[in-house]
Order: sequence, then C-alpha cells, then structure tokens
Amino acid sequence: MPITVKALQKTGPDQPFRVAQIERRDPRADDVVIDIKAAGICHSDIHTIRNEWGEAHFPLTVGHEIAGIVEAVGSDVTDFKVGDRVGVGCMVNSCGECEQCRAGQEQNCLRGNIGTYNVEDVDGSITQGGYSEKVVVNQGFVLRIPEALDFDVAAPLLCAGITTYAPLATWKVSEGQKVAVLGLGGLGHMGVQIAAAKGAEVTVLSRSLKKEEVAKELGASRVLATAEDGFFEEHRGEFDLILNTISADIPVDSYLGLLKPHGVMTVVGLPPAAQPLHFGSLILGGKVLAGSNIGGIAETQEMLDFCAEHGLGAKIEKVGVHEVDEAYERVVAGEVHFRCVIDTSTFDDAEVEA
Amino acid sequence: MPITVKALQKTGPDQPFRVAQIERRDPRADDVVIDIKAAGICHSDIHTIRNEWGEAHFPLTVGHEIAGIVEAVGSDVTDFKVGDRVGVGCMVNSCGECEQCRAGQEQNCLRGNIGTYNVEDVDGSITQGGYSEKVVVNQGFVLRIPEALDFDVAAPLLCAGITTYAPLATWKVSEGQKVAVLGLGGLGHMGVQIAAAKGAEVTVLSRSLKKEEVAKELGASRVLATAEDGFFEEHRGEFDLILNTISADIPVDSYLGLLKPHGVMTVVGLPPAAQPLHFGSLILGGKVLAGSNIGGIAETQEMLDFCAEHGLGAKIEKVGVHEVDEAYERVVAGEVHFRCVIDTSTFDDAEVEA
Repeated sequence: MPITVKALQKTGPDQPFRVAQIERRDPRADDVVIDIKAAGICHSDIHTIRNEWGEAHFPLTVGHEIAGIVEAVGSDVTDFKVGDRVGVGCMVNSCGECEQCRAGQEQNCLRGNIGTYNVEDVDGSITQGGYSEKVVVNQGFVLRIPEALDFDVAAPLLCAGITTYAPLATWKVSEGQKVAVLGLGGLGHMGVQIAAAKGAEVTVLSRSLKKEEVAKELGASRVLATAEDGFFEEHRGEFDLILNTISADIPVDSYLGLLKPHGVMTVVGLPPAAQPLHFGSLILGGKVLAGSNIGGIAETQEMLDFCAEHGLGAKIEKVGVHEVDEAYERVVAGEVHFRCVIDTSTFDDAEVEA
Repeated sequence: MPITVKALQKTGPDQPFRVAQIERRDPRADDVVIDIKAAGICHSDIHTIRNEWGEAHFPLTVGHEIAGIVEAVGSDVTDFKVGDRVGVGCMVNSCGECEQCRAGQEQNCLRGNIGTYNVEDVDGSITQGGYSEKVVVNQGFVLRIPEALDFDVAAPLLCAGITTYAPLATWKVSEGQKVAVLGLGGLGHMGVQIAAAKGAEVTVLSRSLKKEEVAKELGASRVLATAEDGFFEEHRGEFDLILNTISADIPVDSYLGLLKPHGVMTVVGLPPAAQPLHFGSLILGGKVLAGSNIGGIAETQEMLDFCAEHGLGAKIEKVGVHEVDEAYERVVAGEVHFRCVIDTSTFDDAEVEA
C-alpha cells in the first residue's frame, strides 16, 4: 500500500510552500523506507521551483539532501535494516546496465539517471524530493551515514559534499598542493574543508575579505580579494587547482592565469551564459578546465566516510517547515552561512493545507 | 669564432625571402654545431613573419623543425659526437633550474623557454631559426633522430609530431579507445598516425569527405563531415577523446557533446578569438577541455623513438630555398598535404643576396 506523508509542496513558481499530503509508493522488494530527520535546502531546489532550469512539474516537493533512519525494508534488501542511519542524494535510480552504471558512475547513466525530484520515474510518476516526512528509495541509491555525523550536518553532504569531493578526488588533490576555492557558499565551504583535510594549502578567493575569519575556521590558510587591483597579476601561476563553486560569470582566462603549468580549474557552478575562453589560456602551460557533476553512489559513500573520519560536515542553520520560503530569500541573497536544513520534526505539529 | 652560414631571411612581413649570410655563435663548451639537412615549414613561422603574433624582430630567419648531422661539438658535450643524426624543435634553451625544467617540462620553464627563433637569447641576441645551412644549439635541446627516420620526414616531427604526441600521451590514449581528430593538416595528419599507432580507433572530423582516402592511408577508420545536417546529434557521446588541431572558431559546446562522460577534448590550435563555452557542457558528464603546448625534451625524444618504432613520419613535399614564399601561400590556402620541408642542399647553389 502507498504511504501517505506530509511534505512541503509548491503549486507554482510564485506560490508559497504549503504542507500537503503526498503519497510515497508501496515499497517494492528492493526499496528502503526512510523516516527523514533532516533535509537540506540546495540552491538547485530554488532554481527548479522558480522555473530557472525549465518548466517544473507542479505540484512539486523538492529536496535532494536527505538524512534519516530506515523505517522498513523490502524483502530483497540486504544492505540495510530497520534503524540504520541513511541518506539519499540527487539520484534515486539509474539503468544499472550501461557502461557508466557498471563503472559506478550512475550520475552519468547513459539512459539518464532518475533525479530525486521533478523527474519522470520508471513508473511514469514524477519523483518527489526530501522536504517531507518519509521517502521510499531503491536500496542501490541509499547511503550509509556514519555515527560520527549528525543528520542535519550530514544531509547537505549528499549534494554539496559530493559535488566538491568528487573533483578534488578526480584531480588527486593531496598534501602540500596549493588549492584555491572560488566562492564560499554552500559548495565552497565544503570544498575548503575537504581540500584542507586532504592536506592541501587552501586559499579562498572571494570578492572581499568579509569571510576571512570563517574561512580560516573551515581550514583555509588565507582569503584573497579578487576585486583588488592587480589581483590576477600578483597571483599569477600560484595554484595547482582552482575549484570554482560560483554560478556567476567569471573572467575564465584570468583565472586560468592563476594556475601553475598543468594546473586544473574544475567548475561545479553553472553560470547561465556562455563564458568567453581563449584557447591560448589552456595551451600555454598545458592547463585543464574540467566540469564535475555530483558523483557516483560508491564515491558518495566514500565522501561520507571521509567526512566522518576527518570530522567534517556542513555548517548549518535549522529551519522549521514554515520558514522555508523565507530561507529561500536568504539563500538567494547570500545571507546563509552556509546551509539551511529543514528540521522535519516540525512537520509533527504542522497542519495539512492541501 | 662565429660561423657564417647562408639562411633564408625576411626583412619585413611583406618582403620576400632572401638568401642572406648570418652568423651563428662561436660554439660554447656545451654546444652542438648541426649541419642542417631539412627544415620544416610550420604555420607558426608564417604567423610570426606576418606579425600575426606581435611585431617580429626583423631581419629574421624562422624555422623550428630542424634535422641534420652533428658537425662539431663543444668540449663538454658527452651525449653527441660528430656524424650523429640529430634534430632541434621549438626551443633552444631554458633556465634548467625551475621546478618545470627539473621535471622535464622545459616548454613551461617558469622563466620562459628560449624559442628557436624571434626570441631574445641569454646573450641578448635574437634567436635565428632553421631555414639555414647550420645552427648552433645547447646540447640539452638537441634530439637524437633514429636511423629509421629520414631527415625530411623527421623534421616536422620536432613541432607537429610532439604537439600531437604529447596530449595523446598525457590523456593516455590506448588500445580500443575512440579518438576523433579535428582537422587534417600538418598537425592532424600526425595526430591520426600517432593515435592509430597507440591502438585507438581514429575518426577524422573534417568539413567534407574530400580527404577520406588519405585519412584512411594514415590510419583513420573513417572520416565524418561535420558540416552535414544533424552531425552533432547523430554522433553525440561517441568519443573518448577529441584532438582539436584547427585554429579556427569552433562550436565548443557542440564538440563537447560528442564526448562520452569523462571524455577529453584537447586543443592545440589557436583561434585568435575567444570561444564561447557553457560550463554546463563540461559539468554534465564530467568532461575535460585541456590545452597542450609542444612537450619537454625527454618526451620529444620519446615521440621520435615511437615514430621510428611504428614507421610514422610526416607526409612531406620538398621545396627549394627559392620556393618558400610560394609554399607559404599554399600552406595558408590549405593546399599542402601535409608539410613542406626545405631541402637545405639547395642553399649550395643559391647566391647570397644580402
């Protein structure tokens, strides 16, 4: 039987959130039912709901940073049992058969992975995300949350954590390397912690020095203000890797100039417009510009274990189910340091509006 | 004592070549004097002379694809002896002390490598290239040309060969991979041969199918016409690597779409204008856009040995010293298949004009 749960729902891009009752599917043999304890608010949720990434499927529940406790498992589930601490990130399924899935790169599934919300699922329904009391997910897309990580600190790792962990792992950031993190928001603040935990000397690049203190608390050795005169000349050739977490236009050629020969700039933020790039900026010094998109399930687990081992986690503010619209405004205004997480226990007293 | 030799010289961007007498430096203890047998004509020579890369230092002798025989060696030269078959490429010196030089990446010398022509040398003179009878070069920048390679076939390898070999080596092109080579000119025709010799399945991407026969002779399994309707949709996600050898504007996002997840597009051609790039084209599928600039001395030797072992070499036309202006016109018009090489024996009967 389907499971009826409370969820925060949007009926259109300009409508406020409402507490609705939605149905989660009757658990299949390989499904895990998760009692959600915390759900992170990711900027992607806002882009989706505001139709900035195309027309969303309303009514819609978003949220792909989910942490909770296993409440029930299907008969074929062997890896999880009731009471386990688990999480779900940006995907809830993929074909499992293509060369990408077989290589543990489910995010690149050649038939398209099934996103945690706003995507047509294998049964034709539209997936509904984690701003909710419970979710039903195929066991192959459930992660184990180590004891050392609180649910609310762990939830944002499922998107912001893996998004920054994967490129730092791909490009083998290691002891003594000089890494710059461009932007200190939800993504950047995880990138700084992870790069520092890997032994890199981390510099935060920000427009101003406003966030210097918190950047250092996160593990950065310094903050440089990119808006200062002569910045790009003064720091030419300094970095092994730049992790660009911002979604705004940037002078790509100038940033590539900050890299050492064979340095790498990896981008995870998505500016809407095309960025002008002179190939000469890549050719001289044999430099690399690379994209990265979340990570596979195995790598996401590796990231959670890494964060637990090194005591890393998202710096969060808890918000109740009635504070999410306001939280969105503050995310867009850049006022959240660094992640809002919905305390799903506040669903208990929330009246159903639809 | 300085050595006086004949050389082809330009006195300005619009002047014809003239046979001049120029001086090569009195060989130092670590210098090798090379009797030049063949000198390749690279498009870079033309860009330089036409002031397309900034004001050149006239009068100037260009040429950085040099093959010949050792005629004399300085007292400290241990690696070469009179009679050895040798070559010189795009560099004739570097600091030797910085981390790049110590890592065998002399092309990225942090103090700037000394180019084979049109660059201020350590003694303040302007380097003069290989369109000449002889050249005097520091032993550290002299390559050994294997017996299996004729001088005229080997000369273009010193630039076109290493320029395409290095990115294919960096990105570990190997057996069974699907590699596309964009453009079939001086660079592309070496890229096809090298990628095929590494066991890749090579596709040439060209505007039309005109070069299909020769592409297959070089080792390509097919040629695809990029100008055909629906090309980018039809071949979406096919390639592990694209080697872009052209210097014209390209639709970068569309080409990145031809790559498999985690695929690499490596660029060695230098379009003058900035190319628009959506970061999303890199982020989805975690793709890589990378530049490459010639290669270090050790890697250049590795390339020469690889070409000798696999029977590869430039497809060339020989030209005499009085035919170089005309050859330039044909290079620019794309009529040379695939490299003109100056037969320096034609200096013998050439009268000195200056």
